[in-house]
Amino acid sequence: MHRYDDDRRLLGVLADAARVAVLPHFRNGVPAHNKAAAGFDPVTEADKAAEAAIRAVLAEHRPDDGIVGEEEDAKASRSGRRWIVDPIDGTRAFLAGLPSWCVLIALVEEDGPVLSVIDQPHIGERFFGSTGAAGRAAWLERAGVRRDLTVRAAQPLAAALGETTDPFLFAGAEAHAFGAIRERARLMRYGLDAYGYAMVAQGGLDFVVESGLKTWDVAALVPVIEGAGGILTDWRGGPAHEGGQVVAASAPALHEELLALLAPAAL
Amino acid sequence: MHRYDDDRRLLGVLADAARVAVLPHFRNGVPAHNKAAAGFDPVTEADKAAEAAIRAVLAEHRPDDGIVGEEEDAKASRSGRRWIVDPIDGTRAFLAGLPSWCVLIALVEEDGPVLSVIDQPHIGERFFGSTGAAGRAAWLERAGVRRDLTVRAAQPLAAALGETTDPFLFAGAEAHAFGAIRERARLMRYGLDAYGYAMVAQGGLDFVVESGLKTWDVAALVPVIEGAGGILTDWRGGPAHEGGQVVAASAPALHEELLALLAPAAL
Repeated sequence: MHRYDDDRRLLGVLADAARVAVLPHFRNGVPAHNKAAAGFDPVTEADKAAEAAIRAVLAEHRPDDGIVGEEEDAKASRSGRRWIVDPIDGTRAFLAGLPSWCVLIALVEEDGPVLSVIDQPHIGERFFGSTGAAGRAAWLERAGVRRDLTVRAAQPLAAALGETTDPFLFAGAEAHAFGAIRERARLMRYGLDAYGYAMVAQGGLDFVVESGLKTWDVAALVPVIEGAGGILTDWRGGPAHEGGQVVAASAPALHEELLALLAPAAL
Repeated sequence: MHRYDDDRRLLGVLADAARVAVLPHFRNGVPAHNKAAAGFDPVTEADKAAEAAIRAVLAEHRPDDGIVGEEEDAKASRSGRRWIVDPIDGTRAFLAGLPSWCVLIALVEEDGPVLSVIDQPHIGERFFGSTGAAGRAAWLERAGVRRDLTVRAAQPLAAALGETTDPFLFAGAEAHAFGAIRERARLMRYGLDAYGYAMVAQGGLDFVVESGLKTWDVAALVPVIEGAGGILTDWRGGPAHEGGQVVAASAPALHEELLALLAPAAL
Protein backbone atom coordinates (compact mmCIF):
# COMPACT_ATOMS: atom_id res chain seq x y z
CA MET A 1 0.00 0.00 0.00
CA HIS A 2 2.84 2.38 0.75
CA ARG A 3 3.93 2.57 -2.86
CA TYR A 4 0.42 3.49 -3.97
CA ASP A 5 0.15 6.17 -1.33
CA ASP A 6 3.34 7.68 -2.68
CA ASP A 7 2.03 7.48 -6.23
CA ARG A 8 -1.16 9.25 -5.18
CA ARG A 9 0.83 12.10 -3.71
CA LEU A 10 3.01 12.22 -6.81
CA LEU A 11 -0.09 12.34 -9.00
CA GLY A 12 -1.16 15.52 -7.21
CA VAL A 13 2.31 17.00 -7.75
CA LEU A 14 2.15 16.14 -11.46
CA ALA A 15 -1.29 17.74 -11.79
CA ASP A 16 -0.04 20.85 -9.98
CA ALA A 17 2.91 21.12 -12.38
CA ALA A 18 0.59 20.87 -15.39
CA ARG A 19 -1.86 23.37 -13.91
CA VAL A 20 0.83 26.00 -13.41
CA ALA A 21 2.06 25.49 -16.98
CA VAL A 22 -1.37 25.62 -18.61
CA LEU A 23 -3.56 28.14 -16.79
CA PRO A 24 -1.67 31.31 -17.86
CA HIS A 25 -2.43 30.37 -21.49
CA PHE A 26 -6.16 29.72 -21.02
CA ARG A 27 -8.36 32.47 -22.52
CA ASN A 28 -5.19 34.36 -23.29
CA GLY A 29 -5.03 34.34 -27.07
CA VAL A 30 -2.67 31.36 -27.36
CA PRO A 31 -1.78 30.79 -31.02
CA ALA A 32 -2.97 27.52 -32.51
CA HIS A 33 -0.88 25.52 -34.93
CA ASN A 34 -2.37 23.00 -37.31
CA LYS A 35 -0.82 19.65 -36.45
CA ALA A 36 -2.76 17.72 -39.07
CA ALA A 37 -2.50 18.53 -42.76
CA ALA A 38 -6.24 18.00 -43.16
CA GLY A 39 -8.83 18.98 -40.58
CA PHE A 40 -8.46 20.95 -37.39
CA ASP A 41 -6.09 19.53 -34.77
CA PRO A 42 -4.70 22.41 -32.72
CA VAL A 43 -1.69 22.14 -30.49
CA THR A 44 -1.04 25.02 -28.17
CA GLU A 45 2.04 26.24 -26.39
CA ALA A 46 0.20 25.26 -23.24
CA ASP A 47 0.01 21.64 -24.38
CA LYS A 48 3.77 21.39 -24.85
CA ALA A 49 4.57 23.31 -21.67
CA ALA A 50 2.33 21.07 -19.55
CA GLU A 51 3.76 17.82 -20.89
CA ALA A 52 7.33 19.11 -20.40
CA ALA A 53 6.48 20.05 -16.81
CA ILE A 54 5.02 16.60 -16.09
CA ARG A 55 8.03 14.85 -17.68
CA ALA A 56 10.44 16.94 -15.60
CA VAL A 57 8.77 15.86 -12.34
CA LEU A 58 8.72 12.20 -13.44
CA ALA A 59 12.39 12.33 -14.50
CA GLU A 60 13.29 13.40 -10.98
CA HIS A 61 10.95 11.20 -8.93
CA ARG A 62 10.33 8.12 -11.11
CA PRO A 63 13.39 7.87 -13.35
CA ASP A 64 12.82 4.18 -14.18
CA ASP A 65 9.16 4.53 -15.21
CA GLY A 66 8.16 4.85 -18.85
CA ILE A 67 6.24 7.86 -20.21
CA VAL A 68 3.78 7.98 -23.09
CA GLY A 69 2.50 11.45 -23.94
CA GLU A 70 0.69 13.09 -26.82
CA GLU A 71 3.33 15.74 -27.49
CA GLU A 72 6.72 14.00 -27.24
CA ASP A 73 8.24 10.59 -28.09
CA ALA A 74 7.62 7.75 -25.66
CA LYS A 75 10.21 7.01 -22.99
CA ALA A 76 10.83 3.28 -22.41
CA SER A 77 10.12 1.77 -18.98
CA ARG A 78 12.76 -0.02 -16.91
CA SER A 79 10.32 -0.64 -14.04
CA GLY A 80 7.36 -2.17 -15.84
CA ARG A 81 5.34 0.94 -14.98
CA ARG A 82 4.32 3.66 -17.45
CA TRP A 83 2.77 7.09 -17.04
CA ILE A 84 0.31 7.96 -19.80
CA VAL A 85 -0.15 11.71 -20.23
CA ASP A 86 -2.48 13.93 -22.23
CA PRO A 87 -1.42 17.43 -21.19
CA ILE A 88 -4.60 19.05 -22.58
CA ASP A 89 -7.42 16.70 -23.47
CA GLY A 90 -10.01 18.79 -25.30
CA THR A 91 -7.82 21.29 -27.14
CA ARG A 92 -10.84 22.44 -29.15
CA ALA A 93 -12.66 23.38 -25.94
CA PHE A 94 -9.47 25.03 -24.67
CA LEU A 95 -9.22 27.19 -27.80
CA ALA A 96 -12.87 28.19 -27.52
CA GLY A 97 -12.37 29.32 -23.90
CA LEU A 98 -14.54 26.50 -22.53
CA PRO A 99 -13.51 25.09 -19.15
CA SER A 100 -14.16 21.43 -20.07
CA TRP A 101 -10.60 20.60 -21.21
CA CYS A 102 -8.65 18.44 -18.76
CA VAL A 103 -5.15 17.31 -17.89
CA LEU A 104 -5.07 13.47 -17.98
CA ILE A 105 -2.42 11.47 -16.14
CA ALA A 106 -2.55 7.69 -15.62
CA LEU A 107 -0.20 5.17 -14.04
CA VAL A 108 -0.35 1.94 -16.05
CA GLU A 109 1.00 -1.40 -14.84
CA GLU A 110 1.04 -4.76 -16.57
CA ASP A 111 -2.71 -5.34 -16.34
CA GLY A 112 -3.70 -1.79 -17.24
CA PRO A 113 -4.29 1.57 -15.54
CA VAL A 114 -4.22 1.46 -11.71
CA LEU A 115 -4.25 5.14 -10.70
CA SER A 116 -5.21 8.34 -12.51
CA VAL A 117 -6.41 11.91 -12.40
CA ILE A 118 -8.77 13.92 -14.63
CA ASP A 119 -7.89 17.51 -13.68
CA GLN A 120 -9.79 20.68 -14.69
CA PRO A 121 -7.61 23.54 -13.44
CA HIS A 122 -9.89 26.51 -14.30
CA ILE A 123 -12.81 25.15 -12.28
CA GLY A 124 -10.37 23.66 -9.79
CA GLU A 125 -11.82 20.14 -9.98
CA ARG A 126 -9.53 17.12 -9.66
CA PHE A 127 -11.15 13.71 -10.24
CA PHE A 128 -8.99 10.82 -8.97
CA GLY A 129 -9.44 7.08 -9.43
CA SER A 130 -7.67 3.90 -8.38
CA THR A 131 -8.22 0.23 -9.19
CA GLY A 132 -6.51 -3.11 -8.73
CA ALA A 133 -4.16 -3.75 -5.82
CA ALA A 134 -4.46 -0.10 -4.75
CA GLY A 135 -8.12 -0.60 -3.92
CA ARG A 136 -11.06 0.49 -6.00
CA ALA A 137 -12.00 4.13 -5.29
CA ALA A 138 -12.73 7.45 -6.95
CA TRP A 139 -12.85 10.87 -5.39
CA LEU A 140 -13.10 14.55 -6.26
CA GLU A 141 -10.82 17.13 -4.67
CA ARG A 142 -11.76 20.79 -4.91
CA ALA A 143 -10.64 23.72 -2.77
CA GLY A 144 -9.19 21.35 -0.20
CA VAL A 145 -12.40 19.32 0.15
CA ARG A 146 -12.44 15.62 -0.78
CA ARG A 147 -15.67 13.91 -1.80
CA ASP A 148 -16.15 10.28 -2.83
CA LEU A 149 -17.45 9.74 -6.36
CA THR A 150 -20.23 7.25 -7.08
CA VAL A 151 -22.01 6.62 -10.35
CA ARG A 152 -25.72 7.30 -10.68
CA ALA A 153 -28.23 4.59 -9.74
CA ALA A 154 -28.85 2.18 -12.63
CA GLN A 155 -31.05 3.60 -15.42
CA PRO A 156 -32.38 1.96 -18.57
CA LEU A 157 -31.24 3.67 -21.78
CA ALA A 158 -34.66 5.29 -22.19
CA ALA A 159 -34.08 7.17 -18.90
CA ALA A 160 -30.34 7.71 -19.35
CA LEU A 161 -28.33 10.90 -19.95
CA GLY A 162 -25.51 10.29 -22.43
CA GLU A 163 -22.66 12.17 -24.02
CA THR A 164 -20.28 12.06 -26.98
CA THR A 165 -17.67 14.61 -27.97
CA ASP A 166 -18.85 15.21 -31.55
CA PRO A 167 -21.95 13.52 -33.00
CA PHE A 168 -20.74 14.41 -36.51
CA LEU A 169 -17.44 12.54 -36.14
CA PHE A 170 -19.14 9.17 -36.58
CA ALA A 171 -19.46 7.78 -40.12
CA GLY A 172 -20.96 4.67 -41.71
CA ALA A 173 -21.85 1.88 -39.29
CA GLU A 174 -20.64 3.95 -36.32
CA ALA A 175 -22.99 6.80 -37.26
CA HIS A 176 -25.88 4.34 -37.56
CA ALA A 177 -25.11 2.82 -34.15
CA PHE A 178 -24.78 6.23 -32.52
CA GLY A 179 -28.04 7.37 -34.11
CA ALA A 180 -29.83 4.36 -32.59
CA ILE A 181 -28.49 5.26 -29.16
CA ARG A 182 -29.31 8.96 -29.51
CA GLU A 183 -32.91 8.16 -30.49
CA ARG A 184 -33.38 5.85 -27.50
CA ALA A 185 -31.59 7.88 -24.79
CA ARG A 186 -33.48 10.37 -22.66
CA LEU A 187 -30.98 13.14 -23.37
CA MET A 188 -27.61 13.60 -25.09
CA ARG A 189 -24.90 16.17 -24.37
CA TYR A 190 -21.88 16.92 -26.59
CA GLY A 191 -18.34 18.24 -26.62
CA LEU A 192 -16.96 17.26 -23.22
CA ASP A 193 -13.97 15.01 -24.02
CA ALA A 194 -12.63 13.48 -20.77
CA TYR A 195 -14.83 15.74 -18.64
CA GLY A 196 -17.84 13.69 -19.78
CA TYR A 197 -16.35 10.57 -18.16
CA ALA A 198 -15.73 12.54 -14.97
CA MET A 199 -19.44 13.39 -15.03
CA VAL A 200 -20.31 9.68 -15.28
CA ALA A 201 -18.09 9.07 -12.24
CA GLN A 202 -19.73 11.86 -10.25
CA GLY A 203 -23.24 10.62 -11.05
CA GLY A 204 -24.47 13.30 -13.47
CA LEU A 205 -24.29 11.41 -16.75
CA ASP A 206 -25.13 7.73 -17.27
CA PHE A 207 -22.93 6.94 -20.28
CA VAL A 208 -20.41 8.13 -22.85
CA VAL A 209 -19.88 6.63 -26.33
CA GLU A 210 -16.88 7.56 -28.49
CA SER A 211 -14.51 6.19 -31.12
CA GLY A 212 -11.09 6.95 -32.52
CA LEU A 213 -9.51 7.63 -29.12
CA LYS A 214 -5.79 7.29 -28.42
CA THR A 215 -4.35 5.60 -25.34
CA TRP A 216 -3.61 8.99 -23.74
CA ASP A 217 -7.29 9.94 -24.20
CA VAL A 218 -8.52 6.82 -22.40
CA ALA A 219 -6.00 5.46 -19.86
CA ALA A 220 -6.80 8.05 -17.17
CA LEU A 221 -10.55 7.48 -17.56
CA VAL A 222 -10.46 3.82 -16.50
CA PRO A 223 -9.55 4.11 -12.78
CA VAL A 224 -11.94 7.07 -12.31
CA ILE A 225 -14.90 5.29 -13.95
CA GLU A 226 -14.19 1.90 -12.35
CA GLY A 227 -13.34 3.46 -8.98
CA ALA A 228 -16.75 5.18 -8.95
CA GLY A 229 -18.51 1.87 -9.69
CA GLY A 230 -18.92 2.23 -13.45
CA ILE A 231 -17.77 0.21 -16.46
CA LEU A 232 -15.48 1.27 -19.30
CA THR A 233 -14.77 -1.07 -22.23
CA ASP A 234 -14.38 -1.07 -25.99
CA TRP A 235 -17.49 -1.61 -28.13
CA ARG A 236 -17.02 -5.42 -27.86
CA GLY A 237 -16.87 -5.34 -24.08
CA GLY A 238 -13.09 -5.82 -23.86
CA PRO A 239 -10.33 -3.62 -22.39
CA ALA A 240 -10.26 -0.12 -23.89
CA HIS A 241 -7.31 1.62 -22.27
CA GLU A 242 -5.19 1.37 -25.40
CA GLY A 243 -7.72 3.46 -27.32
CA GLY A 244 -10.17 3.01 -30.19
CA GLN A 245 -13.92 2.63 -29.64
CA VAL A 246 -14.92 3.36 -26.05
CA VAL A 247 -18.14 3.03 -24.07
CA ALA A 248 -18.47 4.01 -20.41
CA ALA A 249 -21.63 3.29 -18.42
CA SER A 250 -22.86 3.65 -14.87
CA ALA A 251 -24.28 0.12 -14.57
CA PRO A 252 -24.03 -3.36 -16.15
CA ALA A 253 -27.56 -3.49 -17.62
CA LEU A 254 -27.13 -0.11 -19.35
CA HIS A 255 -23.68 -1.19 -20.58
CA GLU A 256 -25.27 -4.32 -22.10
CA GLU A 257 -27.98 -2.24 -23.78
CA LEU A 258 -25.33 0.00 -25.30
CA LEU A 259 -23.10 -2.89 -26.43
CA ALA A 260 -26.06 -4.47 -28.24
CA LEU A 261 -26.66 -1.26 -30.21
CA LEU A 262 -22.93 -0.74 -30.86
CA ALA A 263 -22.26 -4.36 -31.94
CA PRO A 264 -22.89 -3.83 -35.69
CA ALA A 265 -20.15 -1.17 -35.71
CA ALA A 266 -17.71 -2.78 -33.25
CA LEU A 267 -14.21 -3.29 -34.65
CA MET B 1 -25.81 57.61 -14.18
CA HIS B 2 -26.56 57.24 -10.48
CA ARG B 3 -29.60 55.09 -11.12
CA TYR B 4 -27.57 52.70 -13.27
CA ASP B 5 -24.86 52.41 -10.66
CA ASP B 6 -27.54 51.40 -8.18
CA ASP B 7 -28.98 48.92 -10.63
CA ARG B 8 -25.54 47.36 -11.14
CA ARG B 9 -25.13 46.86 -7.43
CA LEU B 10 -28.65 45.43 -7.21
CA LEU B 11 -27.86 43.04 -10.06
CA GLY B 12 -25.01 41.60 -8.00
CA VAL B 13 -27.35 41.23 -5.01
CA LEU B 14 -29.90 39.43 -7.21
CA ALA B 15 -27.24 37.08 -8.57
CA ASP B 16 -26.03 36.38 -5.02
CA ALA B 17 -29.58 35.53 -3.94
CA ALA B 18 -29.98 33.10 -6.83
CA ARG B 19 -26.57 31.56 -6.23
CA VAL B 20 -27.36 30.78 -2.60
CA ALA B 21 -30.69 29.24 -3.62
CA VAL B 22 -29.30 27.09 -6.43
CA LEU B 23 -25.85 25.81 -5.49
CA PRO B 24 -26.92 23.45 -2.69
CA HIS B 25 -29.05 21.57 -5.27
CA PHE B 26 -26.30 21.23 -7.92
CA ARG B 27 -24.94 17.67 -8.22
CA ASN B 28 -27.12 16.76 -5.29
CA GLY B 29 -29.71 14.40 -6.74
CA VAL B 30 -32.41 17.04 -7.25
CA PRO B 31 -35.60 15.40 -8.53
CA ALA B 32 -36.68 16.45 -12.00
CA HIS B 33 -40.30 16.97 -12.95
CA ASN B 34 -41.53 16.85 -16.51
CA LYS B 35 -43.05 20.23 -17.27
CA ALA B 36 -43.99 19.38 -20.85
CA ALA B 37 -46.32 16.51 -21.67
CA ALA B 38 -44.09 15.53 -24.60
CA GLY B 39 -40.31 15.71 -24.59
CA PHE B 40 -37.92 16.43 -21.79
CA ASP B 41 -38.29 19.80 -20.07
CA PRO B 42 -37.13 19.44 -16.47
CA VAL B 43 -37.86 21.93 -13.76
CA THR B 44 -35.96 21.53 -10.55
CA GLU B 45 -36.56 22.67 -7.04
CA ALA B 46 -33.51 24.86 -7.57
CA ASP B 47 -35.19 26.66 -10.46
CA LYS B 48 -38.19 27.62 -8.37
CA ALA B 49 -36.12 28.51 -5.31
CA ALA B 50 -33.85 30.82 -7.31
CA GLU B 51 -36.69 32.70 -9.00
CA ALA B 52 -38.47 33.13 -5.67
CA ALA B 53 -35.27 34.51 -4.13
CA ILE B 54 -34.81 36.99 -6.97
CA ARG B 55 -38.45 38.10 -6.78
CA ALA B 56 -38.17 38.64 -3.03
CA VAL B 57 -35.21 41.01 -3.46
CA LEU B 58 -36.96 42.89 -6.26
CA ALA B 59 -40.19 43.20 -4.24
CA GLU B 60 -38.22 44.94 -1.52
CA HIS B 61 -35.90 47.15 -3.59
CA ARG B 62 -37.78 47.77 -6.86
CA PRO B 63 -41.46 47.40 -5.95
CA ASP B 64 -42.66 49.35 -9.02
CA ASP B 65 -40.66 47.37 -11.60
CA GLY B 66 -42.23 44.53 -13.55
CA ILE B 67 -40.90 40.96 -13.44
CA VAL B 68 -41.00 38.31 -16.16
CA GLY B 69 -39.63 34.93 -15.13
CA GLU B 70 -39.76 31.39 -16.47
CA GLU B 71 -41.25 29.85 -13.34
CA GLU B 72 -43.98 32.24 -12.14
CA ASP B 73 -46.58 34.58 -13.65
CA ALA B 74 -45.41 37.96 -14.87
CA LYS B 75 -45.71 40.96 -12.56
CA ALA B 76 -46.87 44.16 -14.28
CA SER B 77 -44.59 47.20 -14.31
CA ARG B 78 -45.61 50.59 -12.85
CA SER B 79 -42.23 52.16 -13.65
CA GLY B 80 -41.77 51.22 -17.30
CA ARG B 81 -38.90 48.97 -16.27
CA ARG B 82 -39.00 45.15 -16.23
CA TRP B 83 -36.63 42.51 -14.88
CA ILE B 84 -36.44 39.40 -17.07
CA VAL B 85 -35.29 36.33 -15.15
CA ASP B 86 -34.30 32.79 -16.10
CA PRO B 87 -33.34 31.27 -12.75
CA ILE B 88 -31.54 28.29 -14.35
CA ASP B 89 -30.83 28.57 -18.04
CA GLY B 90 -29.57 25.16 -19.17
CA THR B 91 -31.59 22.87 -16.90
CA ARG B 92 -30.42 19.88 -18.97
CA ALA B 93 -26.79 20.72 -18.22
CA PHE B 94 -27.73 21.28 -14.58
CA LEU B 95 -29.32 17.82 -14.34
CA ALA B 96 -26.28 16.21 -15.95
CA GLY B 97 -23.97 17.87 -13.40
CA LEU B 98 -22.35 20.10 -16.05
CA PRO B 99 -21.30 23.58 -14.89
CA SER B 100 -22.52 25.40 -18.02
CA TRP B 101 -25.99 26.31 -16.69
CA CYS B 102 -26.40 29.98 -15.79
CA VAL B 103 -28.63 32.38 -13.88
CA LEU B 104 -29.86 35.07 -16.30
CA ILE B 105 -31.12 38.44 -15.09
CA ALA B 106 -31.80 41.43 -17.37
CA LEU B 107 -33.15 44.91 -16.79
CA VAL B 108 -35.30 45.91 -19.77
CA GLU B 109 -36.44 49.45 -20.53
CA GLU B 110 -38.57 50.78 -23.36
CA ASP B 111 -35.95 50.22 -26.07
CA GLY B 112 -34.83 46.84 -24.82
CA PRO B 113 -32.32 45.34 -22.36
CA VAL B 114 -29.92 47.87 -20.81
CA LEU B 115 -28.14 45.90 -18.07
CA SER B 116 -27.71 42.18 -17.39
CA VAL B 117 -25.76 39.35 -15.87
CA ILE B 118 -24.97 35.80 -17.03
CA ASP B 119 -23.92 34.10 -13.80
CA GLN B 120 -22.31 30.64 -13.43
CA PRO B 121 -22.18 30.05 -9.67
CA HIS B 122 -20.28 26.71 -9.61
CA ILE B 123 -17.31 28.11 -11.55
CA GLY B 124 -17.84 31.48 -9.89
CA GLU B 125 -17.98 33.44 -13.13
CA ARG B 126 -20.26 36.48 -13.43
CA PHE B 127 -20.50 38.05 -16.90
CA PHE B 128 -22.03 41.55 -16.81
CA GLY B 129 -23.11 43.80 -19.67
CA SER B 130 -24.60 47.24 -20.11
CA THR B 131 -25.82 49.19 -23.13
CA GLY B 132 -27.69 52.37 -23.96
CA ALA B 133 -27.64 55.35 -21.61
CA ALA B 134 -25.65 53.34 -19.06
CA GLY B 135 -22.68 53.18 -21.42
CA ARG B 136 -21.68 50.19 -23.49
CA ALA B 137 -19.48 47.79 -21.51
CA ALA B 138 -19.08 44.14 -20.56
CA TRP B 139 -16.98 42.68 -17.82
CA LEU B 140 -16.30 39.41 -16.00
CA GLU B 141 -16.11 39.26 -12.22
CA ARG B 142 -14.52 36.21 -10.59
CA ALA B 143 -13.07 35.82 -7.11
CA GLY B 144 -13.10 39.58 -6.61
CA VAL B 145 -11.23 40.31 -9.85
CA ARG B 146 -12.89 42.33 -12.63
CA ARG B 147 -11.77 41.96 -16.24
CA ASP B 148 -13.18 43.76 -19.29
CA LEU B 149 -14.72 41.51 -21.93
CA THR B 150 -13.98 42.02 -25.63
CA VAL B 151 -15.05 39.87 -28.53
CA ARG B 152 -12.44 38.08 -30.66
CA ALA B 153 -10.87 39.88 -33.63
CA ALA B 154 -13.04 39.58 -36.76
CA GLN B 155 -12.88 36.14 -38.44
CA PRO B 156 -14.50 34.92 -41.64
CA LEU B 157 -16.87 31.99 -41.15
CA ALA B 158 -14.25 29.57 -42.51
CA ALA B 159 -11.98 30.49 -39.57
CA ALA B 160 -14.72 30.92 -36.98
CA LEU B 161 -15.59 28.86 -33.89
CA GLY B 162 -19.37 28.53 -33.48
CA GLU B 163 -21.85 27.01 -31.09
CA THR B 164 -25.46 25.90 -30.83
CA THR B 165 -27.19 24.20 -27.93
CA ASP B 166 -28.51 21.16 -29.79
CA PRO B 167 -27.77 20.50 -33.48
CA PHE B 168 -30.64 18.00 -33.58
CA LEU B 169 -33.27 20.53 -32.47
CA PHE B 170 -33.35 22.17 -35.91
CA ALA B 171 -35.84 20.81 -38.46
CA GLY B 172 -36.73 21.57 -42.08
CA ALA B 173 -35.36 24.85 -43.42
CA GLU B 174 -33.67 25.61 -40.10
CA ALA B 175 -31.79 22.29 -40.20
CA HIS B 176 -30.69 23.01 -43.76
CA ALA B 177 -29.44 26.50 -42.84
CA PHE B 178 -27.63 25.20 -39.76
CA GLY B 179 -26.03 22.42 -41.82
CA ALA B 180 -24.68 25.01 -44.28
CA ILE B 181 -23.13 26.95 -41.40
CA ARG B 182 -21.68 23.85 -39.74
CA GLU B 183 -20.03 22.74 -42.98
CA ARG B 184 -18.42 26.14 -43.52
CA ALA B 185 -17.33 26.95 -39.95
CA ARG B 186 -13.89 25.96 -38.71
CA LEU B 187 -15.30 24.29 -35.61
CA MET B 188 -18.66 23.86 -33.83
CA ARG B 189 -19.33 23.28 -30.14
CA TYR B 190 -22.66 22.20 -28.62
CA GLY B 191 -24.75 22.27 -25.49
CA LEU B 192 -23.82 25.54 -23.81
CA ASP B 193 -27.09 27.51 -23.63
CA ALA B 194 -26.37 31.07 -22.38
CA TYR B 195 -22.78 30.18 -21.47
CA GLY B 196 -22.01 30.03 -25.22
CA TYR B 197 -22.93 33.71 -25.56
CA ALA B 198 -20.70 34.53 -22.58
CA MET B 199 -17.90 32.79 -24.49
CA VAL B 200 -18.53 35.03 -27.52
CA ALA B 201 -18.29 38.06 -25.21
CA GLN B 202 -15.02 36.86 -23.68
CA GLY B 203 -13.45 36.21 -27.09
CA GLY B 204 -13.38 32.40 -27.18
CA LEU B 205 -16.20 31.69 -29.62
CA ASP B 206 -17.04 33.75 -32.71
CA PHE B 207 -20.74 33.03 -33.04
CA VAL B 208 -23.85 31.29 -31.70
CA VAL B 209 -26.92 30.30 -33.77
CA GLU B 210 -30.15 29.14 -32.09
CA SER B 211 -33.89 29.13 -32.52
CA GLY B 212 -37.00 28.70 -30.40
CA LEU B 213 -35.70 30.84 -27.53
CA LYS B 214 -37.95 32.62 -25.04
CA THR B 215 -37.47 36.21 -23.90
CA TRP B 216 -35.94 35.02 -20.59
CA ASP B 217 -33.39 32.97 -22.57
CA VAL B 218 -32.27 36.00 -24.61
CA ALA B 219 -32.79 39.31 -22.78
CA ALA B 220 -29.71 38.96 -20.55
CA LEU B 221 -27.50 38.01 -23.50
CA VAL B 222 -27.95 41.32 -25.34
CA PRO B 223 -26.08 43.74 -23.02
CA VAL B 224 -23.24 41.25 -22.50
CA ILE B 225 -22.74 40.60 -26.24
CA GLU B 226 -23.19 44.24 -27.26
CA GLY B 227 -21.14 45.53 -24.35
CA ALA B 228 -18.24 43.32 -25.45
CA GLY B 229 -18.46 44.70 -29.01
CA GLY B 230 -20.50 41.93 -30.60
CA ILE B 231 -23.86 41.80 -32.37
CA LEU B 232 -27.01 39.90 -31.39
CA THR B 233 -30.09 39.89 -33.64
CA ASP B 234 -32.80 37.62 -34.94
CA TRP B 235 -32.17 35.71 -38.19
CA ARG B 236 -33.45 38.74 -40.19
CA GLY B 237 -31.06 41.15 -38.48
CA GLY B 238 -33.72 42.74 -36.25
CA PRO B 239 -34.04 42.93 -32.44
CA ALA B 240 -34.05 39.49 -30.78
CA HIS B 241 -34.55 40.15 -27.09
CA GLU B 242 -38.15 38.95 -27.17
CA GLY B 243 -37.01 35.47 -28.28
CA GLY B 244 -37.29 33.26 -31.34
CA GLN B 245 -34.42 32.79 -33.79
CA VAL B 246 -31.17 34.27 -32.49
CA VAL B 247 -27.71 34.81 -33.98
CA ALA B 248 -24.82 36.36 -32.06
CA ALA B 249 -21.52 37.23 -33.74
CA SER B 250 -18.25 38.86 -32.85
CA ALA B 251 -18.09 41.15 -35.89
CA PRO B 252 -20.32 42.70 -38.60
CA ALA B 253 -18.85 40.80 -41.59
CA LEU B 254 -19.28 37.43 -39.87
CA HIS B 255 -22.81 38.43 -38.83
CA GLU B 256 -23.61 39.23 -42.49
CA GLU B 257 -22.19 35.87 -43.63
CA LEU B 258 -24.37 34.07 -41.09
CA LEU B 259 -27.52 36.09 -41.95
CA ALA B 260 -27.08 35.18 -45.64
CA LEU B 261 -27.01 31.46 -44.80
CA LEU B 262 -29.89 31.77 -42.30
CA ALA B 263 -32.12 33.85 -44.62
CA PRO B 264 -33.96 30.91 -46.25
CA ALA B 265 -35.13 29.80 -42.78
CA ALA B 266 -35.68 33.22 -41.20
CA LEU B 267 -39.20 33.73 -39.82
